[in-house]
Amino acid sequence: MKHVAKKHHLPHPEPIDALEHARSGGIATFMRLPHIHDAEELEIALVGIPFDGGTTYRPGTRFGPRHVREQSVLIRPWNPELKINPFAKYRIADYGDFSVNPLSIQDTFRRVEEQMEPLTKAGTRCAAVGGDHSLSLPLLRATAKKYGPVAVIQFDAHNDLWDEYFGCKLSHGTPFRRAIEEGLIREQSFLQVGLRGQVYSADDFEFAKKHKVGMITAEEFHAHGMKVFREKLQGFHGKPVYITLDIDCVDPAFAPGTGTPQVGGFSSAEIVELVRGLRGLKIVGCDLVEVSPPYDNGSITSLLAANLLYELLCVL
Amino acid sequence: MKHVAKKHHLPHPEPIDALEHARSGGIATFMRLPHIHDAEELEIALVGIPFDGGTTYRPGTRFGPRHVREQSVLIRPWNPELKINPFAKYRIADYGDFSVNPLSIQDTFRRVEEQMEPLTKAGTRCAAVGGDHSLSLPLLRATAKKYGPVAVIQFDAHNDLWDEYFGCKLSHGTPFRRAIEEGLIREQSFLQVGLRGQVYSADDFEFAKKHKVGMITAEEFHAHGMKVFREKLQGFHGKPVYITLDIDCVDPAFAPGTGTPQVGGFSSAEIVELVRGLRGLKIVGCDLVEVSPPYDNGSITSLLAANLLYELLCVL
Amino acid sequence: MKHVAKKHHLPHPEPIDALEHARSGGIATFMRLPHIHDAEELEIALVGIPFDGGTTYRPGTRFGPRHVREQSVLIRPWNPELKINPFAKYRIADYGDFSVNPLSIQDTFRRVEEQMEPLTKAGTRCAAVGGDHSLSLPLLRATAKKYGPVAVIQFDAHNDLWDEYFGCKLSHGTPFRRAIEEGLIREQSFLQVGLRGQVYSADDFEFAKKHKVGMITAEEFHAHGMKVFREKLQGFHGKPVYITLDIDCVDPAFAPGTGTPQVGGFSSAEIVELVRGLRGLKIVGCDLVEVSPPYDNGSITSLLAANLLYELLCVL
Amino acid sequence: MKHVAKKHHLPHPEPIDALEHARSGGIATFMRLPHIHDAEELEIALVGIPFDGGTTYRPGTRFGPRHVREQSVLIRPWNPELKINPFAKYRIADYGDFSVNPLSIQDTFRRVEEQMEPLTKAGTRCAAVGGDHSLSLPLLRATAKKYGPVAVIQFDAHNDLWDEYFGCKLSHGTPFRRAIEEGLIREQSFLQVGLRGQVYSADDFEFAKKHKVGMITAEEFHAHGMKVFREKLQGFHGKPVYITLDIDCVDPAFAPGTGTPQVGGFSSAEIVELVRGLRGLKIVGCDLVEVSPPYDNGSITSLLAANLLYELLCVL
Amino acid sequence: MKHVAKKHHLPHPEPIDALEHARSGGIATFMRLPHIHDAEELEIALVGIPFDGGTTYRPGTRFGPRHVREQSVLIRPWNPELKINPFAKYRIADYGDFSVNPLSIQDTFRRVEEQMEPLTKAGTRCAAVGGDHSLSLPLLRATAKKYGPVAVIQFDAHNDLWDEYFGCKLSHGTPFRRAIEEGLIREQSFLQVGLRGQVYSADDFEFAKKHKVGMITAEEFHAHGMKVFREKLQGFHGKPVYITLDIDCVDPAFAPGTGTPQVGGFSSAEIVELVRGLRGLKIVGCDLVEVSPPYDNGSITSLLAANLLYELLCVL
Amino acid sequence: MKHVAKKHHLPHPEPIDALEHARSGGIATFMRLPHIHDAEELEIALVGIPFDGGTTYRPGTRFGPRHVREQSVLIRPWNPELKINPFAKYRIADYGDFSVNPLSIQDTFRRVEEQMEPLTKAGTRCAAVGGDHSLSLPLLRATAKKYGPVAVIQFDAHNDLWDEYFGCKLSHGTPFRRAIEEGLIREQSFLQVGLRGQVYSADDFEFAKKHKVGMITAEEFHAHGMKVFREKLQGFHGKPVYITLDIDCVDPAFAPGTGTPQVGGFSSAEIVELVRGLRGLKIVGCDLVEVSPPYDNGSITSLLAANLLYELLCVL
Repeated sequence: MKHVAKKHHLPHPEPIDALEHARSGGIATFMRLPHIHDAEELEIALVGIPFDGGTTYRPGTRFGPRHVREQSVLIRPWNPELKINPFAKYRIADYGDFSVNPLSIQDTFRRVEEQMEPLTKAGTRCAAVGGDHSLSLPLLRATAKKYGPVAVIQFDAHNDLWDEYFGCKLSHGTPFRRAIEEGLIREQSFLQVGLRGQVYSADDFEFAKKHKVGMITAEEFHAHGMKVFREKLQGFHGKPVYITLDIDCVDPAFAPGTGTPQVGGFSSAEIVELVRGLRGLKIVGCDLVEVSPPYDNGSITSLLAANLLYELLCVL
Repeated sequence: MKHVAKKHHLPHPEPIDALEHARSGGIATFMRLPHIHDAEELEIALVGIPFDGGTTYRPGTRFGPRHVREQSVLIRPWNPELKINPFAKYRIADYGDFSVNPLSIQDTFRRVEEQMEPLTKAGTRCAAVGGDHSLSLPLLRATAKKYGPVAVIQFDAHNDLWDEYFGCKLSHGTPFRRAIEEGLIREQSFLQVGLRGQVYSADDFEFAKKHKVGMITAEEFHAHGMKVFREKLQGFHGKPVYITLDIDCVDPAFAPGTGTPQVGGFSSAEIVELVRGLRGLKIVGCDLVEVSPPYDNGSITSLLAANLLYELLCVL
Repeated sequence: MKHVAKKHHLPHPEPIDALEHARSGGIATFMRLPHIHDAEELEIALVGIPFDGGTTYRPGTRFGPRHVREQSVLIRPWNPELKINPFAKYRIADYGDFSVNPLSIQDTFRRVEEQMEPLTKAGTRCAAVGGDHSLSLPLLRATAKKYGPVAVIQFDAHNDLWDEYFGCKLSHGTPFRRAIEEGLIREQSFLQVGLRGQVYSADDFEFAKKHKVGMITAEEFHAHGMKVFREKLQGFHGKPVYITLDIDCVDPAFAPGTGTPQVGGFSSAEIVELVRGLRGLKIVGCDLVEVSPPYDNGSITSLLAANLLYELLCVL
Repeated sequence: MKHVAKKHHLPHPEPIDALEHARSGGIATFMRLPHIHDAEELEIALVGIPFDGGTTYRPGTRFGPRHVREQSVLIRPWNPELKINPFAKYRIADYGDFSVNPLSIQDTFRRVEEQMEPLTKAGTRCAAVGGDHSLSLPLLRATAKKYGPVAVIQFDAHNDLWDEYFGCKLSHGTPFRRAIEEGLIREQSFLQVGLRGQVYSADDFEFAKKHKVGMITAEEFHAHGMKVFREKLQGFHGKPVYITLDIDCVDPAFAPGTGTPQVGGFSSAEIVELVRGLRGLKIVGCDLVEVSPPYDNGSITSLLAANLLYELLCVL
Repeated sequence: MKHVAKKHHLPHPEPIDALEHARSGGIATFMRLPHIHDAEELEIALVGIPFDGGTTYRPGTRFGPRHVREQSVLIRPWNPELKINPFAKYRIADYGDFSVNPLSIQDTFRRVEEQMEPLTKAGTRCAAVGGDHSLSLPLLRATAKKYGPVAVIQFDAHNDLWDEYFGCKLSHGTPFRRAIEEGLIREQSFLQVGLRGQVYSADDFEFAKKHKVGMITAEEFHAHGMKVFREKLQGFHGKPVYITLDIDCVDPAFAPGTGTPQVGGFSSAEIVELVRGLRGLKIVGCDLVEVSPPYDNGSITSLLAANLLYELLCVL
Repeated sequence: MKHVAKKHHLPHPEPIDALEHARSGGIATFMRLPHIHDAEELEIALVGIPFDGGTTYRPGTRFGPRHVREQSVLIRPWNPELKINPFAKYRIADYGDFSVNPLSIQDTFRRVEEQMEPLTKAGTRCAAVGGDHSLSLPLLRATAKKYGPVAVIQFDAHNDLWDEYFGCKLSHGTPFRRAIEEGLIREQSFLQVGLRGQVYSADDFEFAKKHKVGMITAEEFHAHGMKVFREKLQGFHGKPVYITLDIDCVDPAFAPGTGTPQVGGFSSAEIVELVRGLRGLKIVGCDLVEVSPPYDNGSITSLLAANLLYELLCVL
């Protein structure tokens, strides 16, 4: 990622010092970073999108950004495994939440695309926190406006390639079918990791096969581990890659707070290792979706999400 | 309410006998009644409408019908205060849930109106369990088709007379403005009970005043009790009346499981007394809305709702 | 209550001093009193009976004693309303739990009666914490052995006078019918306070009427307050009285942790006032039952029970 | 399993279409299947047994069937790993709950055996959802009536081979000792998988050794994985096998909602793989027990149980 | 309260418009007001003090400010009872949290007093959200620096006039004894409202009597209502008054999330009415303390606190 | 460990027999052992230390001992993996809780050291249950008084070697730095297991490196398993070793109830195996800390802690 030389007027944003201000206090921003709603000032913007109008079963992800913020106060800056402090390397801040329309998915998508514009224009990469998975579509649209079709790596229990629900083309089960149809995803550059559980019928994978979507099922990962992931990643180096992480790729024991939980998923250690495995890719943006606080007993899902958001920053 | 003489093919529906089948067991239907999806067989239909797409803050009421069913297994048939067994008096059953579209409020309203038709045609009164308060609009439309404009008594913390949210005319904050505009509510026959809490501005009551909507605030009720309610009810006798009960009329201590909780509300004893106070009115239908199970600690909201649904049956 | 002159070998039992040992610490006994399993040493014994095998709906009251102990650490000794320190006035301690058989109600009743013997023999009054309401039967049997038929004041949402469930004569819905049949309760000296909610049929009160059981419904109390209670108490002065308090007499908002919750009940302030209203009676024993910790969100039911247990000690 | 040719009057039962009726709605039956209480119509009957009277520690499994139903609404029909749609292959429906007696284990066993009769007679295999583990005894009795002694594979943290508790021969700790004594289990055809945790004494395994009960401890599985399971399964092919799955074989992190949780258990992915490993056996019936909703934070235990029930259907 | 004429550089602060930005989104500040850490810009500062190091029983109030912020997003501006919009009348904003030292009560008090200085100097009144009740001491010290001894009205279940705990003079049970000793409270101008529950001994009220502290017990309020409060308020008009509201004045049913809950307290409607009853006093500052989110089932305590904070703003 | 020959006056302490007294009943002591506050009578003392005043983020561990006691009622005596019954081998009892000062860390440390004296003098080894991790310091001080500098094995997500927080030298982040500085830990005999997650800066490991602290990160353990642990343990045989187990070494899915949870930790099976791996060491004392009940959804953390405490007894 080439660093665009911008003229910044604000000092380099830093997380609040936990030795001066105890973690239990303060207005909760992402990782205790300053709230800076100015794309020009930032290299990476942490953005919340509090929308769950694309959800077909259990709602609640509209509160995802707020609760990930709350749990992210525990994040410290230095990653001893990757040996990086992302906040020192990049100008990162809490950009605030995009404005959404809880009553309309179409209007929300329009708003998201519109609000992405100043970020794209400024060359500021966006790490978005949902909200439900339908949001990947407007985010990919905005991304493709700048980069053209991008490679996509999706961590998810479900492939989200269904055609429609209740006669609607837009929902959290359909974003990537739409994205492929709209030409937003580069050919043969789409990898889905963590798929598992029942589907509606044997035909549910037809679209994926036809479009050569790569796939690592949870069962394959449990059997072969990181090796199979590293192999499949080969073709992604050098290309602009978009990462989308649906928290339900993780097992409900580690991430109960999600709308369509599926047993048999990753542990927290595994998903952390998977995200770290992205290191070296040319990542142009990412989202982390489907954290549903009303179902998040003990807030461990939001806490995991905050850690994964941090790990994503480390590989961005 | 004149009883239409129908020819019934099924035996009179009765709740499952708790001395034969323990309350902890069995498929949970409303009040352990049989599931009968045939309007012709019923005088009163208990219907769930699992939709919360009109919600602007905390969602979750789409699970209301299921959880009210679950808690309603505790209901016994005889009301010693009102001296009535509604299940013996009327043919009442669990009609099942209306089909809704979680992704579209317009399509859901269309579906609700359509599914109300066989009930209206059969002269079967409907006690609907939401779902969010937006649903009162299609229910009132269906009611007005049969009865013309009806009187309405609304138990609620909020008057739900706002004009629009996010540019949308349909939401859980607007149903009664629409209903008035559409001529579904009889003039000077609309009473709101339990209003309290802050509003957006002093102008928020303009529409209500203009349309002569009656009002008993929670503060007035706390000061004067049932007396003020009985007085305001005077004008409602003899007219066809529709009852709509938003569970947030009750205090969050008694009903935490709701989307826009407002402190300072009724106790459970007070709302039971208020509902019993409806006795003698010519009630043509009712709904009980805004029970949100994801926020219902200890399920006491669903339990209260099940009891209120029973009390409504006793006064229907 | 005449104080039997006993020879005590242990010092007067006192609650642990909270200024020396913080309330968050220490093995949780009732009110931080010493554990003394010796009837001769005590005037009043706090006893747990961890049994819920008489429960027909939601179980869990077998954990009642443990959780009431846990919440009772907050109790301080001096009652500023009644102007009494019960721990100074009487020798009171945590007697431990009676041994029960979770697999057999008959064996449990036998055990309870047996374990009551040393207490009855020593003239030690017993304040029992359940457990479910079936336990009042063996407790009344033990009480009647010493005092003959006693007057009974029952705080409860349900009258627990049913004949049988599933062909069983013993359950938490039947103890007082058995007690009347067995001649344990003095004629015309049985008062039930707090009854409300639906029953199975209009006949459910026949037995009560036939046996002249006094009754104050919750609705009557809400309408008339303490006055009606004081009137009904007239006839109880001078007689040996047994108090039984089913926590479900209180509203689910104040006591969610119970097996058959019933809306429309007392507030915590009201039940405290009712218990204080017993002052001056010749109370020979009491139980506090139906606290079900698995349903006790926020432990407020156990906390209330601990306070009511304390207030009972103040009027014993 | 030979398919008995029956004459069915009802259409082939199918789960409700989630694209027509959103998963949040509808009366909750097992996997949204129709409720058909007619053994002749079914090849496999999903039956709830809401009884926990055999429980010695934490009760609550009487609510297991209802909550497994509730979480099972998320199950879709096609299993991409096993390449099977069990609902298309067999006539499967929700048979409803067996009637039980919450106050008597003996009467409950009698009832269960009686209610199993029409199913056994019709050759309908039964997948039972408990309730506590004592229920395996009447289920095995019914099974043995048709098949004679059967092989048994038990997934469990505890071996449930104790002789008695509190002088009682029937409880959730004793069913398999009784079954062996009664000759319901085929010799040398009993395998226990997942045992771990402390026991009362070194002698606790004597009975198992004497009766040549096979055993794979959790520790052995953690060390050797599926290999050791596949080896032990060798001898079970061709014989009629009964499967009993106590949810506490799974770790409390994945299944907190159970009565006697034991740390160090399987992950959800492991138990799914174990159940799938049963494929090819001649399974004549199964039960899934010890799901205790009052302890099921986030409902993840019920959700896992629903998935395991589905996987069991796939290997039946 | 005379409005000091300041020169403001920022526009008048307004809550975020909920019709533009849905309440589920956005960084949670008090009542969605802007975060302005500049005393000169404000007339009233909403300040969090996330400290619970003075707590002797259940901790957790250090998270009070964050959770009151989260629930306060539901507050709308116009109070229809008092007919006031406090945000229009005064320049009010979220001033952020004071820095505290979770490991030292002394250092925390020093910090609080220091951070109060710019506010006092600017004549900005402070509405502080705790945190535990020990914090009233440094707040009163800062207040007295400007106003001299002030009148105090304390809503509380406990009088917090103890001398010391564990040999420590500073804790949440001692602030007002210290304040009286330090001469911070005006003579005969201290009223405590809501006292109830047991105390250590009959002597516990000696200090209060000696210093002529006024008192309305919960029992008195339950018996006589607002009348008794209005009478006692007589002497407070015209004097500078400091309001301190310990959320445990409210009953645990309405406010479970607190450290030393006491049954028999106010309802939410009653405490709202009490706060509104302060209207017309010359209030120079206030605090709202002892909200403990880890114990706040359903967040209803934080929600109530947010409403009370709003009502306080309306009477400031 | 040489067994000191003491003269005991009490019978050998045994856990209460669960076949006589159901596990749901009885005053909860550690593992249902008798409460014996006499060091002379014991070889191993189970001690609670209910203090969390050294906590910088989420408090609550002051309730750890009480809740570990509650969950420990499920522990049975015989360990089939290690083939040991620790209660038969050693005289073990619940010694009760040390008195602490919730308002002062210094005074608490002084109290702990003082209360350790009779135990050290009697040669009674101590298994302490916290409370927060700051407590290891006074425990190590007491241990070193008897044994001189000891080897230490620490299971933990964090190394707790920071210098100070908020200018304070004593907190739960600093105990082992203090211990090294005070010469309580033997050189090159300090092993930390389970470290992971972000730190403040790359320099955070400088102190550890300088003092040759051994380290096995969670990532290393996930990659290499028990092998790496066994290797590092080599040097510890024969030396007096102190074990300190911070429950946050375990993943939040298995141990949500802790103050500074860190994703990517051990499973319950892994930590059990690790503790069992200590067998054969000459362990002179141990602590198990940072169990925070207010955050312990479903009590699974306390349950795990009770099991780990038992496993520690088996290797002591």
